[in-house]
Amino acid sequence: MVYNFKNDYTEGVHPNILDALKLTNPGQQEGYGDDKYCHKAIHILRHKIGNPFADIHFVSGGTQANAIVIASVLKPYESVISASTGHINVHEAGAVENTGHKINVVESINGKLSCEGIQSVLDKHIDEHMVKPRLVFISNATETGTIYKKKELEALCQFCKSKELLLYLDGARIGCALCSEENDLTLAELSRFVDLFYIGGTKNGAMLGEAVIINNNSLKDGFRFFLKQNGALLAKSRIFGVQFVELFKDDLFFELAKHANAMALKLSRGIEKIGFQFLSKSATNQIFPIFNQDIIKRLSKKYGFYVWENIDDNKAAIRLVTSWATKEEAVDSFISDLRSLKN
Amino acid sequence: MVYNFKNDYTEGVHPNILDALKLTNPGQQEGYGDDKYCHKAIHILRHKIGNPFADIHFVSGGTQANAIVIASVLKPYESVISASTGHINVHEAGAVENTGHKINVVESINGKLSCEGIQSVLDKHIDEHMVKPRLVFISNATETGTIYKKKELEALCQFCKSKELLLYLDGARIGCALCSEENDLTLAELSRFVDLFYIGGTKNGAMLGEAVIINNNSLKDGFRFFLKQNGALLAKSRIFGVQFVELFKDDLFFELAKHANAMALKLSRGIEKIGFQFLSKSATNQIFPIFNQDIIKRLSKKYGFYVWENIDDNKAAIRLVTSWATKEEAVDSFISDLRSLKN
Amino acid sequence: MVYNFKNDYTEGVHPNILDALKLTNPGQQEGYGDDKYCHKAIHILRHKIGNPFADIHFVSGGTQANAIVIASVLKPYESVISASTGHINVHEAGAVENTGHKINVVESINGKLSCEGIQSVLDKHIDEHMVKPRLVFISNATETGTIYKKKELEALCQFCKSKELLLYLDGARIGCALCSEENDLTLAELSRFVDLFYIGGTKNGAMLGEAVIINNNSLKDGFRFFLKQNGALLAKSRIFGVQFVELFKDDLFFELAKHANAMALKLSRGIEKIGFQFLSKSATNQIFPIFNQDIIKRLSKKYGFYVWENIDDNKAAIRLVTSWATKEEAVDSFISDLRSLKN
Amino acid sequence: MVYNFKNDYTEGVHPNILDALKLTNPGQQEGYGDDKYCHKAIHILRHKIGNPFADIHFVSGGTQANAIVIASVLKPYESVISASTGHINVHEAGAVENTGHKINVVESINGKLSCEGIQSVLDKHIDEHMVKPRLVFISNATETGTIYKKKELEALCQFCKSKELLLYLDGARIGCALCSEENDLTLAELSRFVDLFYIGGTKNGAMLGEAVIINNNSLKDGFRFFLKQNGALLAKSRIFGVQFVELFKDDLFFELAKHANAMALKLSRGIEKIGFQFLSKSATNQIFPIFNQDIIKRLSKKYGFYVWENIDDNKAAIRLVTSWATKEEAVDSFISDLRSLKN
Repeated sequence: MVYNFKNDYTEGVHPNILDALKLTNPGQQEGYGDDKYCHKAIHILRHKIGNPFADIHFVSGGTQANAIVIASVLKPYESVISASTGHINVHEAGAVENTGHKINVVESINGKLSCEGIQSVLDKHIDEHMVKPRLVFISNATETGTIYKKKELEALCQFCKSKELLLYLDGARIGCALCSEENDLTLAELSRFVDLFYIGGTKNGAMLGEAVIINNNSLKDGFRFFLKQNGALLAKSRIFGVQFVELFKDDLFFELAKHANAMALKLSRGIEKIGFQFLSKSATNQIFPIFNQDIIKRLSKKYGFYVWENIDDNKAAIRLVTSWATKEEAVDSFISDLRSLKN
Repeated sequence: MVYNFKNDYTEGVHPNILDALKLTNPGQQEGYGDDKYCHKAIHILRHKIGNPFADIHFVSGGTQANAIVIASVLKPYESVISASTGHINVHEAGAVENTGHKINVVESINGKLSCEGIQSVLDKHIDEHMVKPRLVFISNATETGTIYKKKELEALCQFCKSKELLLYLDGARIGCALCSEENDLTLAELSRFVDLFYIGGTKNGAMLGEAVIINNNSLKDGFRFFLKQNGALLAKSRIFGVQFVELFKDDLFFELAKHANAMALKLSRGIEKIGFQFLSKSATNQIFPIFNQDIIKRLSKKYGFYVWENIDDNKAAIRLVTSWATKEEAVDSFISDLRSLKN
Repeated sequence: MVYNFKNDYTEGVHPNILDALKLTNPGQQEGYGDDKYCHKAIHILRHKIGNPFADIHFVSGGTQANAIVIASVLKPYESVISASTGHINVHEAGAVENTGHKINVVESINGKLSCEGIQSVLDKHIDEHMVKPRLVFISNATETGTIYKKKELEALCQFCKSKELLLYLDGARIGCALCSEENDLTLAELSRFVDLFYIGGTKNGAMLGEAVIINNNSLKDGFRFFLKQNGALLAKSRIFGVQFVELFKDDLFFELAKHANAMALKLSRGIEKIGFQFLSKSATNQIFPIFNQDIIKRLSKKYGFYVWENIDDNKAAIRLVTSWATKEEAVDSFISDLRSLKN
Repeated sequence: MVYNFKNDYTEGVHPNILDALKLTNPGQQEGYGDDKYCHKAIHILRHKIGNPFADIHFVSGGTQANAIVIASVLKPYESVISASTGHINVHEAGAVENTGHKINVVESINGKLSCEGIQSVLDKHIDEHMVKPRLVFISNATETGTIYKKKELEALCQFCKSKELLLYLDGARIGCALCSEENDLTLAELSRFVDLFYIGGTKNGAMLGEAVIINNNSLKDGFRFFLKQNGALLAKSRIFGVQFVELFKDDLFFELAKHANAMALKLSRGIEKIGFQFLSKSATNQIFPIFNQDIIKRLSKKYGFYVWENIDDNKAAIRLVTSWATKEEAVDSFISDLRSLKN
């Protein structure tokens, strides 16, 4: 196989991180998040998001982050509202429901959730015979590669406040979102608009690790109990701390995201030029070109990707994901191969 | 502080593992356990345990392993039997109960569970007004540093079979157990006696990672669903694979455990010689000497440890834990300081 | 208020049942389902459904029945498929999710679920990153008053078998379904097509009580544990037994359902004659006529009902429910009042 | 069998209740707790407990009441402290754990929990590696027939307040407790000492029904959601209302409890006189005489009872329970038969 575009975690770890792990390896450190590297990473992240009072915890992956955050926020009869494309809806094996909570699903528009969509759920949940919607789940970048503009996020923030809903943002690909050409949000602005969110390391150069950030004071209590009870309190937590310190030193985190976006943009422009359409207009490192079955079959001999959605009997959209480590040659090769197949 | 004897995860990672992570870092690998290093590690572990048909999965930590394994085995009304000292009973923040299951607690004898103890639970659980005991949880080494002898484990195995109970072994410190001077079990023998168990990496030189091993065919189905649903399916799973391949190459795993045990033995012999008693007779890397409060206070200025149990108004047992990385000088220093304090 | 058409449990209990409760009151009986009346009721019901080997248990209400049955059938990572109108989806306060399970929702057609609808869920759930659909939930009569014809139920039965799915039928209004003019199923036939179902007493003359029937042998084990664990094992269970014996003596159960249907039919024909449309073509005791807001407002002064769905800015469908106890005069009065309002 | 002393729900319903159910049967009533009889019963109960602001809800049984109340009060990582003899500990099939919560068990003294016992749990639960104890569960009368004196309950109340613990009282047999000759508490006093409790109807003359009373304002929110989500919101709730109105009219509730106690007292005095010992000194309607196996075997031919606890190889304590309906002749007969067996 020439290159695997299946996702952004097929590559290893950014070399700086490996070096940092080696450098910091000697010596003893407290465990379970109380090591000096976690403390330092938290200090840095608080500065980056512009909230010195934020509570910050590290966990191993996105599904873990989502399930624990959501369960920590909700009473047993409360629910979370998500776009139909939201990662928690189909792709987390029922992790949220496993914690006892219903997901109220709203048909997504470009991977996004709107105030109208949320209101449509509220309209149907009016007494104790139904669950009580309490939390709104969004992803940025979304699961279809789109991003929330400042105006949109601000509107969601204000709408949620007015309805006594909490707003949570899944930032598995927040790096790519904030480095998108279309983006008009800073990390600090984004942070101000949400009650909680997480900054994804796994898909942006780390070995593992997501930083859960709690801005809303009323949601901070007992979070470490939730982590421990759900098996998410890592013994050698220094691994998290060292990685996030490294990622946010000299903005490596954003440099890596920019590269992933640039590779995706090159890929999509190349595909477009050859004459293909897309399922959605992605602004980040996931793109969804539409090919006929024959082309898909031939491409799949040299490239790894998921067939995302059937368009008609003959055509389907595939998902191509680039990452911090995607080599330009792989992109060039894909475009060149596609051009040959077209002719 | 001269040295922290608080636990076996304050040290970093064994250097060989860091080197292996660096060496294997370039290139793409499938995620979620389907990378070539996990496959290789599974191959090696199957050989080591003498069961080519075992299902093997990697998770991040012991609490995660225990909660997922137990929940995967039990129907909602079934329970797990544990010694009172069992890690799942008090020290996992109710992780097992959080999955909906009761722990039937039996007063432990030297950290261990006996057939009589299990029978006493069965005697009290006789109809549908009580939970139905179904799984037996033991740890080797136990939480008080003792180990199960072959005879004991065989007896538990046969007893469980005769009562239609399943047997699960928490191997967070299985390395130290199998390398103890008192041990008469091989890894393969141990494996044959239990339905499932896990081999702990975190406390024996790894960065993170425990290998869950399912011997009983009837418990294999759907385990990856459990992992995903509980946020335990790591995206960059190669990290697990690389580490376990390295740990079981040239039996590094057992060498590290031997060192931890040797340091503990030296420490306990030294303490004994000075004239102190112990809470229990440990055979592994955790020891529980009894000191008066004044000595404890003075020691705590130079050494890290937990006060484990108050013996009387003046005396308490403390826990000292050694690891693969404990330097002999730290042990010597502790003994020498203790001798001075005694006089 | 002249009459409350809000639902079929605003009325009290059928007098025969009260008499039977009084008659059987003296004397001692075992509790928790082991009384002679429960035994007798089970004997009668097994005969009526044509399955002498069915396991039968009594619970207090429909939400309780649904949540316990569904949780008893599924492993933690398995899900239940339901029509969007299914009672478990919105109107049971997340009871199913509270037991840890996801509901895969299919847009309903006339309140019903089709094989195609089920297949569309299967198509999207293909590996351990998604839940595993295992149970199909249908209601008969449906929540919109329609019923399953023999052909439809048989098709669902065969489809489920072919896909290793289990089929569960919510029979809260099974009496009205089987007594509908459109019905071509017997109770015994219906029972043969499903793995489990329940016969609803509460909405058909009883004080409380639903009979859960388990036909599939593999689902019988441990059900009483589930009942107890969920607080559904009633101490004075004789109440259930006495009621179901009475309901199925001389087919009182079906007589009551016939009356409810007849009243609904009279009501809908009257409304139709005056010139109104309906949201759906109900075959049972729930009808959904469409009125303009002015008429709804005026009717609501004399009659109780729920506004079910807004049709446009001016019109809405309301739900009218009749029961075993609905007096013909109430129906006549409603029609006559509506006629006046129309003019 | 001459008489079944197994428990206090083998008898039917007090005749007054059946008459009231018949009298109130005609006519329509709102469901789910909003009927006029529930409203009236709540009004009466608020007066009886001396708290006009209490929230009061009716449920079907004790296990249901306990599980829902406990789950409604606790965050996922919080636990409930109970005496080892507490009904929730062994006899509710893990219902509390099924809601995700650990029970911290304290060895009971005469069926009761003391401040020292609670403190011993607090001492062991000090950080996020353990659950966080938050609720204290006691029963009055206790499961061994003893009762809490005013001084004891007041001490528990103050202790709990000082430790930020909540206090919940299971009143399955609260009637017998408050009517015991040893009792020095009024219902209103008891109510003032606890955050929540329930008044048990099932074991004191009702068909089914327990009144859950929430005194603590901070625990009131959303309770109806909990009821619905757990299948405990009864459609024809009027049944609860009618029964509790009847039970508290002219203090029938207490008259019935007095009779049960009187029969137990007569029984225990008779047994004592013949020369037998008791497992505990019961003050209410459950007594635990100790007999040798031969006598137990012979008695069991004519009387129903549970063998409660083996005392030695030859002797065991049995449990005899009287009720509002126990006939004096049955008591006389038991004593007389026992006397014959002794000789």
